[in-house]
Amino acid sequence: MSRVRLTSDELEAALRAIGVERYHDKHPFHALLHGGKLRKGQVQAWALNRYCYQAHIPIKDAVLLSRMTDPVLRRAWRVRIEDHDGTLEREGGTARWLKLTDGLGLSRDDVVSMQRILPATRFAVEAYVHFVADRPLLEGIASSLTELFAPKIHRERIAGMLEHYDFIDEATLSYFSKRLDQATRDADFALDYVKREARTTEAQQRVLQALHFKCDVLWTQLDALTYAYVDPGKVPHGAFQPEGGV
Amino acid sequence: MSRVRLTSDELEAALRAIGVERYHDKHPFHALLHGGKLRKGQVQAWALNRYCYQAHIPIKDAVLLSRMTDPVLRRAWRVRIEDHDGTLEREGGTARWLKLTDGLGLSRDDVVSMQRILPATRFAVEAYVHFVADRPLLEGIASSLTELFAPKIHRERIAGMLEHYDFIDEATLSYFSKRLDQATRDADFALDYVKREARTTEAQQRVLQALHFKCDVLWTQLDALTYAYVDPGKVPHGAFQPEGGV
Repeated sequence: MSRVRLTSDELEAALRAIGVERYHDKHPFHALLHGGKLRKGQVQAWALNRYCYQAHIPIKDAVLLSRMTDPVLRRAWRVRIEDHDGTLEREGGTARWLKLTDGLGLSRDDVVSMQRILPATRFAVEAYVHFVADRPLLEGIASSLTELFAPKIHRERIAGMLEHYDFIDEATLSYFSKRLDQATRDADFALDYVKREARTTEAQQRVLQALHFKCDVLWTQLDALTYAYVDPGKVPHGAFQPEGGV
Repeated sequence: MSRVRLTSDELEAALRAIGVERYHDKHPFHALLHGGKLRKGQVQAWALNRYCYQAHIPIKDAVLLSRMTDPVLRRAWRVRIEDHDGTLEREGGTARWLKLTDGLGLSRDDVVSMQRILPATRFAVEAYVHFVADRPLLEGIASSLTELFAPKIHRERIAGMLEHYDFIDEATLSYFSKRLDQATRDADFALDYVKREARTTEAQQRVLQALHFKCDVLWTQLDALTYAYVDPGKVPHGAFQPEGGV
């Protein structure tokens, strides 16, 4: 990694280069998921585990909010929590995720309890929450920048899953269609922030490392799903067992 | 899981039953490791990643120490940190682990920096440290009880690795031979503690869950090692690449 001070545009280019290499759209599990190569039980395992990640996003954002001393910044960031938790007028992303798990035939109790997820999922998700609690705010904000790469994977997922799976329809995928705009708005805001605030070479390196870390959080979850549920799957003790086996 | 109050002997039996089912001596990776089925690069990957776990054990014990209000208990627990970090007179377990990684031809800088370990290893190990920081002390102590099952796996490892690998000798395995007595002493102490202090049904259930959690911490590390390094290995970005590939 370069150790000279970057211009803000060079920093953006370096961040985008990390996505090209490490964002989880490159993971083989997503090729299987979007290409119609998974059985329903494997898609269930993905949605069940990913619920843990979804459920912790507003918690992660609340931790970040608690560390922001600038009310203007807090006001801008707060919308992320509303997007996931909802408001009196509109439902949030977590509710839309549950439409997906409902549509896949999973029981809400099973999903919401998170009792049957892979331990590796929980460890990765909790690492993300601890990261934003323990590291400087700049790194916490930078770790959200995987949103830069999300609209592309969301579009691929919507198209691929609608085409290939008869147990998927537009309503069950409403989480992803809604995120297309939200992720772009959120990513633009966070990108402007880190380009403005990462003023030293060292701060820029920490921003890049934060995005590496976040890519690892996402990638590791798919490694664990693949190991547990893709042939020959080895489901660990206590985790979700698809009907008919893996 | 039973929801009636157990006698202290029934609690011990329930804890030992968890080990029979979930302790990582049952993981297929250990059958490969102890049976001489791994190439040197795969044994290197195991020792490199496991260093992260070893290095965090005294940190985990320091967190527990910081939460103990009874000086008698602290004095008894403190010996664990000395066993790993060493004293002026005797070397500790971490130094002995580095004899193993030295013997395997890994550079100390690579090992100690932990820069090339699997993200899944780091997430699992940090989950353990956070667990003992965040949960009641009784659960933190209970999570150490995998030590009950350690002497057996250490004996199998020493015998199997000496027999099968020409790059392993008794000096490089001194960590495990030393742990045979230490682990037994530590496990007896912690077992007496939880049998005495887990007085309610609910406390007993939390003790059992803590041991489940700890078994997950160990098992998950081997799942990730297997996925990354056992044929067909898929090493994630930035992690250790054995010479000659996986």
